[in-house]
Amino acid sequence: MIDKPLILVTNDDGISAPGIRALISVMNDLGEVVVVAPNSPQSAMGHAITINSTLECNKIKVDNGPQIEYSCSGTPADCVKLGINEILRRKPDICVSGINHGSNSSINVVYSGTMSAAIEASIEGVPSIGFSLLDYSWKANFEIFKDYVKKITIAALKNKIPSGNSLNVNFPKLSKKEIKGIKICRQAKAFWIEKFDKRINPQGKKYYWLTGDFIDDDNSPDTDEWALKNGYISIVPIKFDMTDHKNIKELEDWKF
Amino acid sequence: MIDKPLILVTNDDGISAPGIRALISVMNDLGEVVVVAPNSPQSAMGHAITINSTLECNKIKVDNGPQIEYSCSGTPADCVKLGINEILRRKPDICVSGINHGSNSSINVVYSGTMSAAIEASIEGVPSIGFSLLDYSWKANFEIFKDYVKKITIAALKNKIPSGNSLNVNFPKLSKKEIKGIKICRQAKAFWIEKFDKRINPQGKKYYWLTGDFIDDDNSPDTDEWALKNGYISIVPIKFDMTDHKNIKELEDWKF
Repeated sequence: MIDKPLILVTNDDGISAPGIRALISVMNDLGEVVVVAPNSPQSAMGHAITINSTLECNKIKVDNGPQIEYSCSGTPADCVKLGINEILRRKPDICVSGINHGSNSSINVVYSGTMSAAIEASIEGVPSIGFSLLDYSWKANFEIFKDYVKKITIAALKNKIPSGNSLNVNFPKLSKKEIKGIKICRQAKAFWIEKFDKRINPQGKKYYWLTGDFIDDDNSPDTDEWALKNGYISIVPIKFDMTDHKNIKELEDWKF
Repeated sequence: MIDKPLILVTNDDGISAPGIRALISVMNDLGEVVVVAPNSPQSAMGHAITINSTLECNKIKVDNGPQIEYSCSGTPADCVKLGINEILRRKPDICVSGINHGSNSSINVVYSGTMSAAIEASIEGVPSIGFSLLDYSWKANFEIFKDYVKKITIAALKNKIPSGNSLNVNFPKLSKKEIKGIKICRQAKAFWIEKFDKRINPQGKKYYWLTGDFIDDDNSPDTDEWALKNGYISIVPIKFDMTDHKNIKELEDWKF
């Protein structure tokens, strides 16, 4: 393990969210911490980056911890790009993102700002972990998960996350006693069925709210959804190579 | 092949972009076309969705074609969700996205609004193709690629895109004579090295523009970057399961 690792911390709920404050407090025990996080909530931003407008990034002080902090106008992926390429004097040893207020298991990984930050770090050659708790509340209890965040981060620094991967860690909303342990999983084949809540504004114009039902008809015990439903913390190795290698041969037989 | 396929068309450059107008004109030859596309440019939006604000979606008429068109305030992924779950009376036979003004090859796929729309469709069980031309100009010549768009879409309807996949099609910026054919590829391991162009605004405040250099040190002939550099149209099968299955075993050996 590195003597005093340099740790980049970010999230998608914004720099003042309780989830990132819990994450920072754990990381301060493990190394030198630099925070570069959005100045406002950026949930469901996917892997958006800011190319058609400008970015602001300002050093701020949020609490009395030893960490250095920057508040940034961009998306989670922008924060990681700024952190690695502009703010930090050297490549960080690890990038941690979260703790997200809400699940990023199964298909949610593709919409997640928390995980896009982690994935961006892995693209840039920095090992990374995204942490999420299955509790959307601003008052979610992150305290009981701090030990696990520490253990998982230490294991990642010691064992080295496989190149091109980031870890998608989700915590079930359970008490410490109810948690059965950690399970390495695959992303469940679950999805959302959208329901658009159609409304009329005071000017008589139609508009929609996106809502939906989460459907998991995978149910296999090797999935993250199964682990979370059965009292485990799920860890999925996520890669940014989106090629479906096994189908290249089949497509080569197509006649155009 | 389906007698009269129902085709959902979208993009990320906005409903009036020349790229989507070219795509619509090809699709009108192949089936019944419904367009649901952003009312403004949404490049580099990744897989962002709109959950914290409202969506507008209005029927409009852009040209004299037979297609039905909706202009939407959301992201490309929102447009596909609206199209499939709210606007269309049945699941479309295929969703096509583009033609993007600019490359979505290799790592660009994770930032791409064009491809996030296609991936969203595949998540919802609709076969999909994203088309992109390696020319960022608004005046890019899409005309010469129409035949290829048609051929590839017909082949996809006939052969069926493997379940859980969408096709990432990129066209090199070449004349018709220079194009050597179509190549099935994997996503190249290329990436961006960001450079932040730091400036001072009239009020004396610091801000940044995100710029960067594209680095391809993969160079393998089975990659999309190689194909495009060597005169081929590249097709990569893209999947939304981001699990790196081959590394699950390795992670299971970690001690926490």
